[in-house]
Amino acid sequence: MKISVISVGSELLKDKLNTNLLYISKKILSLGLKVPFSSTVADDKETLLKIFEYHLNNSDIVITTGGLGPTIDDVTKECVASLLNKKLLFSREIYENIVRHFVEKNQDVPQLAEKQAYVVEGAEILYNKIGLAPGQKIVIKKDNKEKILYLLPGPPRELQSMFDEYVIKDLKRFQTKVYKEKIFHTCNIPESKIEEIIKPILEIEEKYSSDIEFSILPHLNIVDIKISAFGHDELKIDEEISLIKDQIYECFKNANLPYAIYAEDNETLEYVVGMLLGRHKKTLAVAESCTGGLLANRITNIPGSSFYFLGGCVVYSNFLKEKVLGVKKETLQTYGAVSEQTVKEMCVGLKNLVGADYCISISGIAGPTGGTKDKPVGTVWICVYDGKEFESRCFRFLGTRLEVKEQAVNSALEMLRQRLIKDLK
Amino acid sequence: MKISVISVGSELLKDKLNTNLLYISKKILSLGLKVPFSSTVADDKETLLKIFEYHLNNSDIVITTGGLGPTIDDVTKECVASLLNKKLLFSREIYENIVRHFVEKNQDVPQLAEKQAYVVEGAEILYNKIGLAPGQKIVIKKDNKEKILYLLPGPPRELQSMFDEYVIKDLKRFQTKVYKEKIFHTCNIPESKIEEIIKPILEIEEKYSSDIEFSILPHLNIVDIKISAFGHDELKIDEEISLIKDQIYECFKNANLPYAIYAEDNETLEYVVGMLLGRHKKTLAVAESCTGGLLANRITNIPGSSFYFLGGCVVYSNFLKEKVLGVKKETLQTYGAVSEQTVKEMCVGLKNLVGADYCISISGIAGPTGGTKDKPVGTVWICVYDGKEFESRCFRFLGTRLEVKEQAVNSALEMLRQRLIKDLK
Repeated sequence: MKISVISVGSELLKDKLNTNLLYISKKILSLGLKVPFSSTVADDKETLLKIFEYHLNNSDIVITTGGLGPTIDDVTKECVASLLNKKLLFSREIYENIVRHFVEKNQDVPQLAEKQAYVVEGAEILYNKIGLAPGQKIVIKKDNKEKILYLLPGPPRELQSMFDEYVIKDLKRFQTKVYKEKIFHTCNIPESKIEEIIKPILEIEEKYSSDIEFSILPHLNIVDIKISAFGHDELKIDEEISLIKDQIYECFKNANLPYAIYAEDNETLEYVVGMLLGRHKKTLAVAESCTGGLLANRITNIPGSSFYFLGGCVVYSNFLKEKVLGVKKETLQTYGAVSEQTVKEMCVGLKNLVGADYCISISGIAGPTGGTKDKPVGTVWICVYDGKEFESRCFRFLGTRLEVKEQAVNSALEMLRQRLIKDLK
Repeated sequence: MKISVISVGSELLKDKLNTNLLYISKKILSLGLKVPFSSTVADDKETLLKIFEYHLNNSDIVITTGGLGPTIDDVTKECVASLLNKKLLFSREIYENIVRHFVEKNQDVPQLAEKQAYVVEGAEILYNKIGLAPGQKIVIKKDNKEKILYLLPGPPRELQSMFDEYVIKDLKRFQTKVYKEKIFHTCNIPESKIEEIIKPILEIEEKYSSDIEFSILPHLNIVDIKISAFGHDELKIDEEISLIKDQIYECFKNANLPYAIYAEDNETLEYVVGMLLGRHKKTLAVAESCTGGLLANRITNIPGSSFYFLGGCVVYSNFLKEKVLGVKKETLQTYGAVSEQTVKEMCVGLKNLVGADYCISISGIAGPTGGTKDKPVGTVWICVYDGKEFESRCFRFLGTRLEVKEQAVNSALEMLRQRLIKDLK
């Protein structure tokens, strides 16, 4: 069963990343099916005709996105009709839906809207609950074989809703294999170290009955370990993944890093830290210099964070470090704003001001300028404090200004997480 | 001159958005050339062979990205060689480069690395300054016509550097047309209003000699107006764009919104606000509740922001609004944290604490919970204060938690910008 995708739209070769392709191919993969190839095509009739022909010749199911709008550059339907030698027929039902839409909004029906009411002869209409362009499903008999062509709109919200409602349900009947993924996230451990730690598992890859793959995926100072498993027997795959999972945790335990994996699958560091704080009814405050609010922002991206996050300060100037947090002038003069002494005093000042159970402070040089020989761009001091004990660390991050900020925030959250695990045991 | 792109890599149909395609097609567009179609292909030899054949038959220049690595799933070179009936030859020079790389890092040379030293017979080697996989340029004579095939690596940093160094310079000689773009950014004005304001210009689109297109692109509460122009005469295009630019500014003036366009092309709101503050030596501080640090983060993403940004507070709890900013308990009790009175008192407290020339405060309900009938999710109060005058506004944003935060930050920056323009005149 070969499934391919055609993404139609000049904007995909000019302005916009193609998010639809990844959405569709991931969902198809979750059925154990694959998308071996896909094309992105400008709104150009001649090119589109050729690409449609190629896809219909080389796949059993073709899914198109885009080109169903009312304007002159939307030509998906026209191309398909001409390729299949079919007419475009006016659908009164679709047209009435469109008219209703404008009437409800007290707007005139634009003349162009009529174009959206035409469907390819013999097509099944796929209703669009979000936008105006309906989708279509066309079954083609060719050389005694059945091929299916789905025409779906391009706006991601519409595409996603219609793909889930019509296409994925349809495709289920072609499912012969199962695909499962499992991801483990780590922070502040180099990629090469991760590889070394889980080496015993990577080496027995071929031992597993299903088609199991391991990948190590680094994103700045976060490294993910991913298991992808393809197979016929869902139970067996689940068992194998669960076995590998245990072995991975065992490997980290043996490497003396029992809590290295901060989360699995879609969970983020800020979510995990929030859960730990919430569960144990502890509060948090932060004092940021070089990260400039990014730490607080990441923490408050989690719904419900107001239960444990009290707030904090962005002390971007030395003046505010002194005035708001009471960092001593001599400390700043003697050791500099980017120093262990300063981040410790920032934490003490924050604890006095806010009284949160845990305080985090960050001070560093995000760049691109401001670095010195001793403290190059990327040097960041981070401190975690609970009113009694300090834990402070100096990092040297590589990358752009925004990448340094992001790595500093990841490291701060990871330091707090390790501390919470220790304290809450 | 038909140029097409093949993106090779199973991860592009599973894990990763294809950013290389947009990078390449945008750069080619800037030469007045177009990429009419492109394919994304899994690391599968059989499929790749077919796609390569199709592209070589239907375009004059084919650019591939990915599949040049040392592992078994990297098959781009092998496919090209087999398709063109050429051998893969070992390059001592490339191999020595690879060995040098590992020796410098004090690492053993992995056995697999040798594979990267093979090039297609007759290919020109394109050196890779960032990674290990070299690129290749292959000129093919077919039916008395010359076709060019570029093989480039997949990691975006490597691809971009090599595309700029080799391909774009090469393609310049095929340039026959010129392409130019101009973008104008607005904030807090609805898309329909923008359309109405610039209607007189949209209606004379056909008047221009070159191929000029207008688009209106909304991103949350930011709306862009984009002019794209294609033509033979660069001077003429520049003149026409400059004429349209004047007309657009004129339209906004006539609509009584003379400063509606906050920036052109790649400039951001936080950059423009920073420039205004810097140029007039004014300082800024912010007090954030629902945006939770995002405003400070956006401001500090700009290099050099420490010259005008002093810092601020993330007062995520009512307790901190009182304690740090001195918002009165009665105010919070009577009017609530999301109220004009509260954001005004937040600004006064911030001004007292920090003494910045300008203070911004934000308090609202980012959701997904916490809304009431009077103050639904998305209700956000914003205040700008200079020590004398307050300007406060209530917004009702739609969207997810993160979208509400983003719109609130955009609106706050835009309010400050309007205020700065007024004050600094």
